[in-house]
Amino acid sequence: MAGTSQVVLRPKTTDEVSAILKYCNERKIAVVPQGGNTGLVGGSVPVFDEVVISTQLMNNIISLDDLSGVLVCQAGCVLATLEDHVSAYNLTMPYDLGAKGSCHIGGNIATNAGGLRLLRYGSLHGSVLGLEVVLANGEVLDCLSTLRKDNTGYDLKHLFIGSEGTLGVVTGVSILCPQKPNSVNVAFLGCDSFSRVLDTFKQSKQQLAEILSAFELIDAASMLTVKENLNLSSPIEDYPFYVLIETSGSDGNHDKEKLDRFLEHLMETGIVENGTVATEPTKIQNIWGLRERLAEALMHDGYNYKYDVSLPLSKFYGLVEAMRERAGAATIRVIGYGHVGDGNLHLNLTTSEYRQDVMDLIEPYIYDWVSGCHGSISAEHGLGFKKKDFIYHSKSKSAVSLMKKMKHLMDPNGILNPYKMLPSD
Amino acid sequence: MAGTSQVVLRPKTTDEVSAILKYCNERKIAVVPQGGNTGLVGGSVPVFDEVVISTQLMNNIISLDDLSGVLVCQAGCVLATLEDHVSAYNLTMPYDLGAKGSCHIGGNIATNAGGLRLLRYGSLHGSVLGLEVVLANGEVLDCLSTLRKDNTGYDLKHLFIGSEGTLGVVTGVSILCPQKPNSVNVAFLGCDSFSRVLDTFKQSKQQLAEILSAFELIDAASMLTVKENLNLSSPIEDYPFYVLIETSGSDGNHDKEKLDRFLEHLMETGIVENGTVATEPTKIQNIWGLRERLAEALMHDGYNYKYDVSLPLSKFYGLVEAMRERAGAATIRVIGYGHVGDGNLHLNLTTSEYRQDVMDLIEPYIYDWVSGCHGSISAEHGLGFKKKDFIYHSKSKSAVSLMKKMKHLMDPNGILNPYKMLPSD
Repeated sequence: MAGTSQVVLRPKTTDEVSAILKYCNERKIAVVPQGGNTGLVGGSVPVFDEVVISTQLMNNIISLDDLSGVLVCQAGCVLATLEDHVSAYNLTMPYDLGAKGSCHIGGNIATNAGGLRLLRYGSLHGSVLGLEVVLANGEVLDCLSTLRKDNTGYDLKHLFIGSEGTLGVVTGVSILCPQKPNSVNVAFLGCDSFSRVLDTFKQSKQQLAEILSAFELIDAASMLTVKENLNLSSPIEDYPFYVLIETSGSDGNHDKEKLDRFLEHLMETGIVENGTVATEPTKIQNIWGLRERLAEALMHDGYNYKYDVSLPLSKFYGLVEAMRERAGAATIRVIGYGHVGDGNLHLNLTTSEYRQDVMDLIEPYIYDWVSGCHGSISAEHGLGFKKKDFIYHSKSKSAVSLMKKMKHLMDPNGILNPYKMLPSD
Repeated sequence: MAGTSQVVLRPKTTDEVSAILKYCNERKIAVVPQGGNTGLVGGSVPVFDEVVISTQLMNNIISLDDLSGVLVCQAGCVLATLEDHVSAYNLTMPYDLGAKGSCHIGGNIATNAGGLRLLRYGSLHGSVLGLEVVLANGEVLDCLSTLRKDNTGYDLKHLFIGSEGTLGVVTGVSILCPQKPNSVNVAFLGCDSFSRVLDTFKQSKQQLAEILSAFELIDAASMLTVKENLNLSSPIEDYPFYVLIETSGSDGNHDKEKLDRFLEHLMETGIVENGTVATEPTKIQNIWGLRERLAEALMHDGYNYKYDVSLPLSKFYGLVEAMRERAGAATIRVIGYGHVGDGNLHLNLTTSEYRQDVMDLIEPYIYDWVSGCHGSISAEHGLGFKKKDFIYHSKSKSAVSLMKKMKHLMDPNGILNPYKMLPSD
């Protein structure tokens, strides 16, 4: 999605952001906060003539306390740069994303980024300790605490995590970085059915427990996509489902022992059909590539209908099957992959070019299906501009009504990222 | 603190809570939501003639998904009952409190309870997946999601976590329960100085990493308190500082090996002077008793001036020393203990009975001291009635101003737990 704005401002300081917002608010000029602009639902892109406020030049790392693990930085720091910085102190960022090379931490906060480590380190609502935010009228809200515990009044920072820039512009972040693991291992397994995938998940929680750091699904159609479009190859023969399990821990020998015992149990009980373990970085990277390069592989088909939903695990793969039955004949492929450990499915369909008849087969059917299972129509991508009118499929009327009241309270002139997240009704 | 209310209502259902609030809101009758009434700052106690809404009869467990670990229950369930329930499915509650035998999960949410497992499982903002809340006007806000990821609109549930019943009455909770550890070990160590305690913490993060589940401090004056007042005995000889480290993991042998290696390193490098490891439940319980029974031991002295603050680790014990110098001579004792792992100090002073001159030595000195280090004047106990006017010591004017606007938006008649949390100015 490309925007049409004529003005992009690149402030360096919080005071500059404050001055911009004060000016715009007084004149009722709409603004769009923009980080690395890596979002998938058009949240950081101007719709009409909004002024873009880019955090690109706000990229200072302010402090790192290597004992508590608390990092404080400006909103425009790139995730990969932060990972490199904390890594030198034996720490790691509590989240990881495919877009890490260009996404900004401020944008990650504004969109409540999920990603690959959520299973282990939890959501940003747990990791973010403090925020500095400039409100619509230019007022600076200082909640940039570095404390793990602070029960003095409402914890306002949570308002801004995942609010897609509609309540304020995040300028500073304080975040808790866990210890960097000494040992990372990856297992890649083949399963005969999705119910075996769930059995594998149950066993992994019991046997790998504290060292489990990712549990990802790749279905056969996904594997075919990276084989056909990127010429990648699988380390094991063909199965209907593949599971990528990552462990991270402080003792390589202990981790390997747990993983070997776990795999042995899975093979003996017939839960998995085949599997391989990678401990060398290159082999690990190759296996992760099968999962991480799926988005890239899909683009080779032409047009990609992308969906990112949360579902109860018992319904997780049912949606892929239902969609394949409904739209399979009209598309090149219907594939399902994602973070089983978080209940987060990425469902993708492709055609050589955009087709309205295919879109009509998908929407609103998919949202009704997800809603029928009490799932979420956007697990981690947000609503942005593209999905905002589907909010009622995942949120109650009373909840949306309260959201609108809060938006009006905090941005009475409606200058902050209008036309995003909240429905137009 | 004892209240003076004449009316206590014990609804069984959300609809009943809704009817009560609708009635009270229309007539501008103030209410106090009350769980197990175990708070320490008077948050759940009526100040004048407020109607008490007790969640005592709302104690149904609604569902438990043993694969995802999601528990859904009514707000009045007692924490220990929930722990017993999920324990049968090899899960554990993500927090643990001394008051577990009587506190209600709804009250824990409303006060953002911290407790003994925060170091491992993080805060309730990360663990709570959904809430059902009755708003001031009786409207039921259904955010009782069971999903780990849901980025559709503002995540309203966070508003109510830690809001001490001033924005709504929590009636239903959905919470993520981690796998129950197979193996729990405790080490009890003696250190010569507080800087050695911090060295020990640093080493524990590196070497115990994913199995570290508690890092607690007991100073010599605290040890003397349980010895003198409860006749408990220490498993090691006398030191200025004691550290209690708990590990929880899935493999007892691995955990023991990590812990032994860690202790060996600490002894060899002289970071700790002496230490003992407990693996049997009785011995573990005895060691935990030294820490958990401190509140009880203090009561034997007569009057207890209790403080619960968050501080940067470099300043953590400085407050105890400053207070001892200032008020030591006027008191029976000044002791410091708490969750070093979370930066959370419990500072206590005792006299045989309440003395205003001693109080004048403590307050506002202590709040100024904490504020000077950018700490929190209430780490986990909340502000309630007793501490609300000190909120500016930990929160900025712009933050408190926004809190008040939100309170007015959501409770325009001010019926929900008035006189609590927000300052009277």
